[in-house]
Amino acid sequence: MARYLKSKKEHIGLSPDAIHFKGEKKSDAVLLEVIDFNSENLEEYEEKSVNEVVKFNQTATTTWLNIYGLHDEKVMGDIANQFELEPLILADVMNTHARPKIQEYDNCIYISFKMLQYDDLLNHISSENIVILIKENILLLFQEKIGDVFDPVRERIRKNKKRIRGSGTDYLAFALMDIVFDNYNYIISQIGEKIESLEVDLLTNSNESILEEINKFKKEIIYLDKSIKPCREIVMELLKMDSELLADKVYVHFEDLKNNINQAIESLQSYREILSDQLQIYHTTISSKLNDIIKFLTVFSVIFIPLTFIAGVYGTNFDVLPELHYKYSYFIMLGVMLILAVSMIFYFKKKKWF
Amino acid sequence: MARYLKSKKEHIGLSPDAIHFKGEKKSDAVLLEVIDFNSENLEEYEEKSVNEVVKFNQTATTTWLNIYGLHDEKVMGDIANQFELEPLILADVMNTHARPKIQEYDNCIYISFKMLQYDDLLNHISSENIVILIKENILLLFQEKIGDVFDPVRERIRKNKKRIRGSGTDYLAFALMDIVFDNYNYIISQIGEKIESLEVDLLTNSNESILEEINKFKKEIIYLDKSIKPCREIVMELLKMDSELLADKVYVHFEDLKNNINQAIESLQSYREILSDQLQIYHTTISSKLNDIIKFLTVFSVIFIPLTFIAGVYGTNFDVLPELHYKYSYFIMLGVMLILAVSMIFYFKKKKWF
Amino acid sequence: MARYLKSKKEHIGLSPDAIHFKGEKKSDAVLLEVIDFNSENLEEYEEKSVNEVVKFNQTATTTWLNIYGLHDEKVMGDIANQFELEPLILADVMNTHARPKIQEYDNCIYISFKMLQYDDLLNHISSENIVILIKENILLLFQEKIGDVFDPVRERIRKNKKRIRGSGTDYLAFALMDIVFDNYNYIISQIGEKIESLEVDLLTNSNESILEEINKFKKEIIYLDKSIKPCREIVMELLKMDSELLADKVYVHFEDLKNNINQAIESLQSYREILSDQLQIYHTTISSKLNDIIKFLTVFSVIFIPLTFIAGVYGTNFDVLPELHYKYSYFIMLGVMLILAVSMIFYFKKKKWF
Amino acid sequence: MARYLKSKKEHIGLSPDAIHFKGEKKSDAVLLEVIDFNSENLEEYEEKSVNEVVKFNQTATTTWLNIYGLHDEKVMGDIANQFELEPLILADVMNTHARPKIQEYDNCIYISFKMLQYDDLLNHISSENIVILIKENILLLFQEKIGDVFDPVRERIRKNKKRIRGSGTDYLAFALMDIVFDNYNYIISQIGEKIESLEVDLLTNSNESILEEINKFKKEIIYLDKSIKPCREIVMELLKMDSELLADKVYVHFEDLKNNINQAIESLQSYREILSDQLQIYHTTISSKLNDIIKFLTVFSVIFIPLTFIAGVYGTNFDVLPELHYKYSYFIMLGVMLILAVSMIFYFKKKKWF
Amino acid sequence: MARYLKSKKEHIGLSPDAIHFKGEKKSDAVLLEVIDFNSENLEEYEEKSVNEVVKFNQTATTTWLNIYGLHDEKVMGDIANQFELEPLILADVMNTHARPKIQEYDNCIYISFKMLQYDDLLNHISSENIVILIKENILLLFQEKIGDVFDPVRERIRKNKKRIRGSGTDYLAFALMDIVFDNYNYIISQIGEKIESLEVDLLTNSNESILEEINKFKKEIIYLDKSIKPCREIVMELLKMDSELLADKVYVHFEDLKNNINQAIESLQSYREILSDQLQIYHTTISSKLNDIIKFLTVFSVIFIPLTFIAGVYGTNFDVLPELHYKYSYFIMLGVMLILAVSMIFYFKKKKWF
Repeated sequence: MARYLKSKKEHIGLSPDAIHFKGEKKSDAVLLEVIDFNSENLEEYEEKSVNEVVKFNQTATTTWLNIYGLHDEKVMGDIANQFELEPLILADVMNTHARPKIQEYDNCIYISFKMLQYDDLLNHISSENIVILIKENILLLFQEKIGDVFDPVRERIRKNKKRIRGSGTDYLAFALMDIVFDNYNYIISQIGEKIESLEVDLLTNSNESILEEINKFKKEIIYLDKSIKPCREIVMELLKMDSELLADKVYVHFEDLKNNINQAIESLQSYREILSDQLQIYHTTISSKLNDIIKFLTVFSVIFIPLTFIAGVYGTNFDVLPELHYKYSYFIMLGVMLILAVSMIFYFKKKKWF
Repeated sequence: MARYLKSKKEHIGLSPDAIHFKGEKKSDAVLLEVIDFNSENLEEYEEKSVNEVVKFNQTATTTWLNIYGLHDEKVMGDIANQFELEPLILADVMNTHARPKIQEYDNCIYISFKMLQYDDLLNHISSENIVILIKENILLLFQEKIGDVFDPVRERIRKNKKRIRGSGTDYLAFALMDIVFDNYNYIISQIGEKIESLEVDLLTNSNESILEEINKFKKEIIYLDKSIKPCREIVMELLKMDSELLADKVYVHFEDLKNNINQAIESLQSYREILSDQLQIYHTTISSKLNDIIKFLTVFSVIFIPLTFIAGVYGTNFDVLPELHYKYSYFIMLGVMLILAVSMIFYFKKKKWF
Repeated sequence: MARYLKSKKEHIGLSPDAIHFKGEKKSDAVLLEVIDFNSENLEEYEEKSVNEVVKFNQTATTTWLNIYGLHDEKVMGDIANQFELEPLILADVMNTHARPKIQEYDNCIYISFKMLQYDDLLNHISSENIVILIKENILLLFQEKIGDVFDPVRERIRKNKKRIRGSGTDYLAFALMDIVFDNYNYIISQIGEKIESLEVDLLTNSNESILEEINKFKKEIIYLDKSIKPCREIVMELLKMDSELLADKVYVHFEDLKNNINQAIESLQSYREILSDQLQIYHTTISSKLNDIIKFLTVFSVIFIPLTFIAGVYGTNFDVLPELHYKYSYFIMLGVMLILAVSMIFYFKKKKWF
Repeated sequence: MARYLKSKKEHIGLSPDAIHFKGEKKSDAVLLEVIDFNSENLEEYEEKSVNEVVKFNQTATTTWLNIYGLHDEKVMGDIANQFELEPLILADVMNTHARPKIQEYDNCIYISFKMLQYDDLLNHISSENIVILIKENILLLFQEKIGDVFDPVRERIRKNKKRIRGSGTDYLAFALMDIVFDNYNYIISQIGEKIESLEVDLLTNSNESILEEINKFKKEIIYLDKSIKPCREIVMELLKMDSELLADKVYVHFEDLKNNINQAIESLQSYREILSDQLQIYHTTISSKLNDIIKFLTVFSVIFIPLTFIAGVYGTNFDVLPELHYKYSYFIMLGVMLILAVSMIFYFKKKKWF
Repeated sequence: MARYLKSKKEHIGLSPDAIHFKGEKKSDAVLLEVIDFNSENLEEYEEKSVNEVVKFNQTATTTWLNIYGLHDEKVMGDIANQFELEPLILADVMNTHARPKIQEYDNCIYISFKMLQYDDLLNHISSENIVILIKENILLLFQEKIGDVFDPVRERIRKNKKRIRGSGTDYLAFALMDIVFDNYNYIISQIGEKIESLEVDLLTNSNESILEEINKFKKEIIYLDKSIKPCREIVMELLKMDSELLADKVYVHFEDLKNNINQAIESLQSYREILSDQLQIYHTTISSKLNDIIKFLTVFSVIFIPLTFIAGVYGTNFDVLPELHYKYSYFIMLGVMLILAVSMIFYFKKKKWF
């Protein structure tokens, strides 16, 4: 199926607030993970039902509600009701193929982006759609599959790091986005290292497998670009947003996000150009190698052509062919051939033809 | 006829409000389809005359008037009169080759765009010009041909979906545009799948038919790009428009349109780059295949050249040619030839020349 | 002379208000054509002297004064005096190589652009500089050569079309620009049709004349681009201009101009990309044709090489060469040669080398 | 030395107001040329000392002070003192490798740009840094070398042209910049003509000298682009500048400068594209010529290959080779060879292989 | 390791204010260098402990505190405490792989950028991260390694240059950035000179080492571009910043920075284009050289082909072959061969085939 844009016929014309899962079902059940904390206390729960978590919406503590598995349309409907979310929002949450976006609603900020994972061996990047809903005292994070890159944030909360425990959902959202963007940079640097290491192979040992690798990297770079670029818009939007849900002091962190994402985009651009150059080097190397072979072989043939001609002349059966009857003719012919061959070799060498 | 821009000599210099059909006549009669609804009631009619539908302009219910067939200049004139539209608007409606655009008038908003249809077998995209006029209680939709992508919207109205039945013409316009933009994404994903599947063929089985396909896809991508890009302007304009005809709550949906169209444009860009890369892969594959053949054949010839030369030398008719008279000369010659051939093969193999 | 930028040494450093003709003199005399109209009356005159037309500056009727022939510096000076134009304006009018521009002055709006003409047979686009001066009751249109694309506007005035007869010089200016921009689109569609029809030839019958045609079209597209792009700036400027000379109701028409010119620019862009693709197809076709020939010939030679070698061996004159003396040797040799040739052909066929 | 950016180690870290000459010393002494005028009077002087010219700073007449030779750091220091210029300004003046820029100071406007000179024979463009300081009653123009393009302005002043004699230093600055920009356009048109005339040679007589010329032009175009583009920023800045030193009526002239410079930039862009196309045409022509030769020669060889083989067969020394003993064998062989050759020629002709 | 983006797994998800060194440790100890000055006095110290330098924070004199070695997390923590810096700032300081950025804090302005060093022999550019913190009376400059480009600034302070001694930390920051940007331009001009000097080699003596050099330069240009471009953003930000820490009179110097950095970026762009052109010239030269060889050799072979054929014919053993028995046959054959060879050479020469 098309990796760059997945769109199914049956989804066309669905009402924009139809709570309908668009994506690949990756997990079986729905799992609700709660981390509830303030500067003093921290509690963690794992729940199966929406009713048990809705109470955290009221408490003054900061709550991070992680919802795994978006395919269960009933559960999603419950969440919409209990947390007073517009159906529109939930419909967006369930469309895992959507483009990253940010939107401000009356009682929450909706942010979606892609969490990327790089399979080092297959050189393949896979993506997972992440949605964050920032509410006053609770942050909802939606993802289809269990397994993510957010463990360091969980650790920082558990280890009672001052800043994250003393801040609200806005700072938590920053921390989550920051880790995802850090991860972009990490993936780019991993791919980048591989790309830069291609260079050595290119010059010493060009073969078609290198070509395939270059093309593989090019495709992954295009894919990364497509996943990462919309995040710049999101961050720019965040910086301009004047929402009560975002404390003043968190904007300085958003600036960091901007820098983080800009660095990723610029590095992608650099690697893109490097890949183009490598492709050109590959073609040059291959064609110069072929040229050398062709030149060598052509020169080789050319040397024998006049020699064979001379032998041909003395193979004719004319009655009168005086040279045939001298005693040393044959040896003279061989000598002439030798001189001819050697002088041609010298000539071609001098002209640097091989 | 030129697909990218169709312009006829006889249309040059027409008064901008001349009600004159510019396009290909695709249907015979004019057909007026009415869907009239509010939260409680729904009625559908099919009419032939403008006089019978004009009453819906006054009623408080939301009316969707679908006008098929724009070539009848008289009927169009009637519509302009009865619905109090400026002649300019109708002239624009009838120019089916025009670029998508949006314009605010005193009593209506004019939006035109292309409805695309993708012929899966021929790999050909055809387009149909759609014009939407948003008035207070009635939405006029103009198209030349019967048959469109709007059935899901009709279904949602009939099934009494709360949001669409409870909203006005602004939301209806959104729903119609949304379905057209969804359709763009669907077409792109269909073409995209085909493009991505080319890759496999490219590496295993390159031939000229693949080249033709790549070029075909390139042309369709250019065509899509040209049809879709102006829609971004339209949506951006909609988002900035401060019209009484657009309710506040509909803007959040327009944001969705923006995302939808941005995703389409970015995917097109990705496929464009992928096609360029495929073209390069094709050329590389073809030329590397040719190189292999040429190398093989050249090496083959080169091996025989010295052998033929040796035979030539012993075919000369010199009186004195001592080697001819030894008993094993012939067999020694054959042996030398064999050794020569084998060592050349080894040499070329070692140098990886074939 | 350079078509893209014509600049003469003797014009450097001229005072900006020196009334000096810069361009090619294309007509002999100066001709003044007057169309004077309001909703009720219409009168047309042809005059030779400026004094006879200056009275129309005062009348309340709308006057279109068409001035053919700009090379006569005396007449131009008279016009400047009689119509109270700054010398600067007239100097600009007489510089027919200038870039299209728009400028607001105290008592008039200056607009210049290029009227293009496409010679269908030579595939050559020529341009003519047009200057429009919008004053309150008179519009001055300057062009060097008699013969233009404005006849449809003249017809609309004569046929007493309501809108044009009832409007002022602002609407007249719009109508004139509209017809020129329509003409751009028409020329592009004509060239576009030719470009699209090249495709068929490309695939069936590639030869150098196609290459020349592609390059010819590329140059014309660059030329069109250069003439048309500044018009977008002009229209954008017009839309922002807040002049008393422009009635409110005329802005909706300027929006049409914007769409018109955008369509032209985007179509040019599409055709540019199509031409690039065609060029690539051409090169691919040519080189694949050559490759086929080279492959065929190489294979052909390669088949004879071992055969000739065998004949060479049996042409040697060794005293002892046992095969020569068997009765069927010759026929066996021919047979071996045949088998060799046939198996090589099979081998090469199987490998798809020809 | 690098033409595109000249920077010397010893200049790094100099205080920004160190009055230190950075550039190539092109003249020996410092020369001060004064043109002092108002509508009635005109006086011209040539001075060697700063003290003698400083009086013109006070007079109500407009003074154009032309300073040749910037390398004398003492004289420059005097100028700074006498004309009450910040040291920073003089430091900038003496850096002749700086990028064109504009800056407003308390008592003057600083404008620098490049005066270009085109050596027609060598196809080489050289540049000279020009700095204009606009003060209330005096305009200082700094240049290192004697010899410039400003003579037409001097002439206009001497001939008592109304506009320039009646205006202040702002109009004088415009006149000077206008002449420099006119000169840009003139140089571009000169190069453009040469580029366009290459076309004819390209199609009839492609050789390597054309290639060198194309590459030479490309480099000059890049150089022009780099010198001219910053001038657009300068003009845009001028148009926005709200300085007391600039009279209202001079802005209309600045608009002309904008048009002038835009035309230059767009023409450069056009010629850049034309050069790219020419390069491609060159390569196509060369390679198609080579292909023709290769095809001809290959076909030629291929015709002889079977003929030589036949001769080889009848050169074998088999005891039993019946054909040798028929009376007409030789002639039959020659006949067969002829038929073979002719039919191959026909076949290849038909296939359009040569 | 990837040069364009270095990112380590263990740094992902670190709290943004974790004081943790990200980079390569280049020096052993931490060194604190103090230059304390005002118009009258100047004192320099070298300290090892933070406590001894913190007093300069209070004094009215301007202090430049240069901190070498950022890897010591304890020392960095002390600095944060003593100078009342947010932990966030120090965390940023210690991330030496970060993208250049600027940020305004309550009591300081944070600016980071790359100091580049060019190894002339290896053609390799290395970079060192520099952070400047502008506070009211003290400027902190952080760098990991001892050895920098700032000596000229130190000299200007010591030599009691009026402007730098009489200004505050804002001007000092300008002076430091100015020297770094000057250095960019110097490096570009050094590389540029080398690039321009390649041209000569290209035309006379193309070989693969030139190709490697071109590719090497391309990579360095990409690297420079990536390091320098963000500095433009920094300067633009500085110019817009309305901070109490920046005196009005320092903005004119920031304008100079803008010009400086723009010049660098534009020069890079020019060299990029020149390298692309050189690459193309290289390929053209190489392939035209190959073509000449191939043509020569092909022509050479072709001349011998008919000659060898003739000899073959007279080497046949037909009983009846009349020409063999004429007395002068052999000489006639040689003559015919000579004539044939000479006329073919003439023909090919005339057709300019070699």
